[in-house]
Amino acid sequence: MAKELKNFTKRSDNYSQWYNELVVKADLAEQSAVRGCMVIKPYGYAIWEKMQRTLDDMFKATGHQNAYFPLLIPKSFLCREAEHVEGFAKECAVVTHYRLKNDPEGNGVVVDPEARLEEELIIRPTSETIIWNTYKNWIHSYRDLPILINQWANVMRWEMRTRMFLRTAEFLWQEGHTAHATREEAEAEARKMLEVYADFAENYMAVPVIKGVKSPNERFAGAVDTFTIEAMMQDGKALQSGTSHFLGQNFAKAFDVTYINKENKPEYVWATSWGVSTRLMGALIMTHSDDNGLVLPPHLAPIQVVIVPIYKDAEGLAKISERVAGIVANLRAKGVSVKYDDADNKRPGFKFADYEVKGVPVRLALGARDLENGTVEVMRRDTLEKETLPLEGIEQTVVEMLEDIQKNLLVKARKYRDEMTTTADTYEEFKEKLEKGGFILAHWDGTPETEEKIKEETKATIRCIPFEGDTTPGVCMVTGKPSARRVIFARSY
Amino acid sequence: MAKELKNFTKRSDNYSQWYNELVVKADLAEQSAVRGCMVIKPYGYAIWEKMQRTLDDMFKATGHQNAYFPLLIPKSFLCREAEHVEGFAKECAVVTHYRLKNDPEGNGVVVDPEARLEEELIIRPTSETIIWNTYKNWIHSYRDLPILINQWANVMRWEMRTRMFLRTAEFLWQEGHTAHATREEAEAEARKMLEVYADFAENYMAVPVIKGVKSPNERFAGAVDTFTIEAMMQDGKALQSGTSHFLGQNFAKAFDVTYINKENKPEYVWATSWGVSTRLMGALIMTHSDDNGLVLPPHLAPIQVVIVPIYKDAEGLAKISERVAGIVANLRAKGVSVKYDDADNKRPGFKFADYEVKGVPVRLALGARDLENGTVEVMRRDTLEKETLPLEGIEQTVVEMLEDIQKNLLVKARKYRDEMTTTADTYEEFKEKLEKGGFILAHWDGTPETEEKIKEETKATIRCIPFEGDTTPGVCMVTGKPSARRVIFARSY
Repeated sequence: MAKELKNFTKRSDNYSQWYNELVVKADLAEQSAVRGCMVIKPYGYAIWEKMQRTLDDMFKATGHQNAYFPLLIPKSFLCREAEHVEGFAKECAVVTHYRLKNDPEGNGVVVDPEARLEEELIIRPTSETIIWNTYKNWIHSYRDLPILINQWANVMRWEMRTRMFLRTAEFLWQEGHTAHATREEAEAEARKMLEVYADFAENYMAVPVIKGVKSPNERFAGAVDTFTIEAMMQDGKALQSGTSHFLGQNFAKAFDVTYINKENKPEYVWATSWGVSTRLMGALIMTHSDDNGLVLPPHLAPIQVVIVPIYKDAEGLAKISERVAGIVANLRAKGVSVKYDDADNKRPGFKFADYEVKGVPVRLALGARDLENGTVEVMRRDTLEKETLPLEGIEQTVVEMLEDIQKNLLVKARKYRDEMTTTADTYEEFKEKLEKGGFILAHWDGTPETEEKIKEETKATIRCIPFEGDTTPGVCMVTGKPSARRVIFARSY
Repeated sequence: MAKELKNFTKRSDNYSQWYNELVVKADLAEQSAVRGCMVIKPYGYAIWEKMQRTLDDMFKATGHQNAYFPLLIPKSFLCREAEHVEGFAKECAVVTHYRLKNDPEGNGVVVDPEARLEEELIIRPTSETIIWNTYKNWIHSYRDLPILINQWANVMRWEMRTRMFLRTAEFLWQEGHTAHATREEAEAEARKMLEVYADFAENYMAVPVIKGVKSPNERFAGAVDTFTIEAMMQDGKALQSGTSHFLGQNFAKAFDVTYINKENKPEYVWATSWGVSTRLMGALIMTHSDDNGLVLPPHLAPIQVVIVPIYKDAEGLAKISERVAGIVANLRAKGVSVKYDDADNKRPGFKFADYEVKGVPVRLALGARDLENGTVEVMRRDTLEKETLPLEGIEQTVVEMLEDIQKNLLVKARKYRDEMTTTADTYEEFKEKLEKGGFILAHWDGTPETEEKIKEETKATIRCIPFEGDTTPGVCMVTGKPSARRVIFARSY
């Protein structure tokens, strides 16, 4: 293994440190000079671009269009929706001035005190307020509905403790904001977009998720209902991977957005919003990767196959390159993203380790003897299994292997998740099991007070009330009061 | 013509007002509640997305990768490069606090005075400083070079007078930032990217451009040379449509970025940066559109063909729809973006006007009699010509017409530009011709003083010293001093 990869922390030694090192060593991102903000490096950004492209296609296939709203939000907008401001206004970047000037004392530049804004502007932590202020002018009649809009944007929340991808002050995301004539239509939209997220998580990220609704304590500030997909990381902690909110008429009322219905009467508009962010990168990394580095599902890998030549001299390389050219062309024709790494300044062993750390799903290595024998060494990243296979027809073998890896990763992650999902009937049992991590299905009396008490005493929260699964009633493990059904508890990111 | 399109200002009456109205009526963008910031509406954003996708493919084809750097820049970074701060630091959004709190007097929220940042952060007006501060850690040896990175991002410049797309406080753009081992390589990169921009402008936007180098007064703050593509709008004013900067070693020196060269000696790194923005939307609109609304080149039109059925009853519509289904499928198979508008709540005349205002390149209208006769009415947006053509084989006709429109728009724009390009030999002649607008080729003594004097007295600036064209020396029209060659003057956006 190459030099810089030595001393790679193992997951079992320190999961958190393993993650931080992996993000840097796989060249995904790094801390920037600005507190809590990261630089997303080209390799990390290429994965995010694949996520974006896939999700964008899915949004368009479900009838949505993209648009763009301002980065800055007038401070007063945040106060319009009472619960929203409680949830969001507190920790955010505030623009107070619009000009710098040369320091009269000669030390660079200073803020020009005369260029103070009349009203402060907030860097958007989310865009419901500015968007609903805009929709007010777009919506007059039922004929103007529905509005189905998505925005790809950067947002900012001044988090005190940050971790790359998982929790950063600035992050990239998409936020859908839709407007509807009826409650039913808006609720259906919020649920539909949760299905889109679940589809993306399972079939592209190979991350199994549990769909459900949030308890009131965990609900988005301003929502009537928050739907969520919850994933489990390899340390047994939950990661909320996407949320879709049914906002009722809360924002329509806050921004006075009404429409004339078919009966010619004014009515408040119904709303949803839904988003996923670069946090998905964190979920992707933590679900599949191992002590050797990143493991990427083929559907999101920027490089799906790497081919490394093993040669002694220029003549040997030329012969291999000639044979590889056809393989590369055939793989590309099949839609496979392939890299032929014939760089002369790195040894094969270094290349092997590098692509392993970067999670390239399939590696082919080809030497002089292989050419003679008509074989190639194939390594798959998910299992690290190596085998020597016939060169003839290798393209089809690789295509099938990529699909097999994609499926295998999901199966493996689901198996782990299921093994780490248990039930608890008493609070004692709950606390005991919680120490081992994982999802715990337990009865809860449905009150915010009990939820809060559990959180304070155990650091576990209700991840969701799942849409599916056991719906047998019972009694709350803490208060003994009636419980409608078991809900999912876990410690989380 | 539909109701809302009446009273559309004519270009000849008030070009500026015509533009502002067009942006709104074609549903491209609108002013937001935040001063100087616009909302880009779905139809406008769809055009921008096509631009983005095309440019992104071109950047990747020339070896570049995308990445993402922080939105906020520490104030002190801006001062590192002396000329850069003079050019950019003055008008920008300054973040001074990171928290709001409930107003003790109960009026919403106020800035928490205890949450003052130690060092103010600036919303990026451009990212050279934060990026070169990052590159410092990425570059050690000649083996780390070149770095060829692009970023798609929002930026902010606190402009006093704003106009949608042309000059807004926040705008969307891409900024390429490359690092090289040699001066030659960096200069070649800056020129190569200007060629990419020119290619895009002419072959996708159908906007003819003149490539050249900026005079010192018009150079990017911190650049050694700024290359530009200059377009001419229909009012004879110039619009700088893209710039590519050879930055020399200025930013490497400011951020102390050196590399060990092949001779094992440290050397400062050479740099370029290059960008185009949503301003291109303004260039696109103003180059082709007419008094009836937007005119879009087919290569960037979100809807290339619209099909409108003319019918009396449901039965009539069903017959037309049946025939149209095949045409739609065939056009899509040929890669044409087509919309069949069978909406029941709008009359054909309204639809015609709406798609005309929105600049859809080709419109097909199909009624009962057309079905009988095997014909279809075809309207092309660039010339507004209508003709009745055989339905049989209409798909191929449309594909050819789209390419013809694409070419015609460029030819037409180039013809106008050439007609509006003149020479002037005396300052009097120059001032006289300037009143008619257009590009004026004139001799200039090469000094910033003369350039400044001309700007103050006539509001004309040197758009560029063109790469091509007449290179005969002469004498400056103002000072009579020697001039190496004619340069291009114009009033500009």
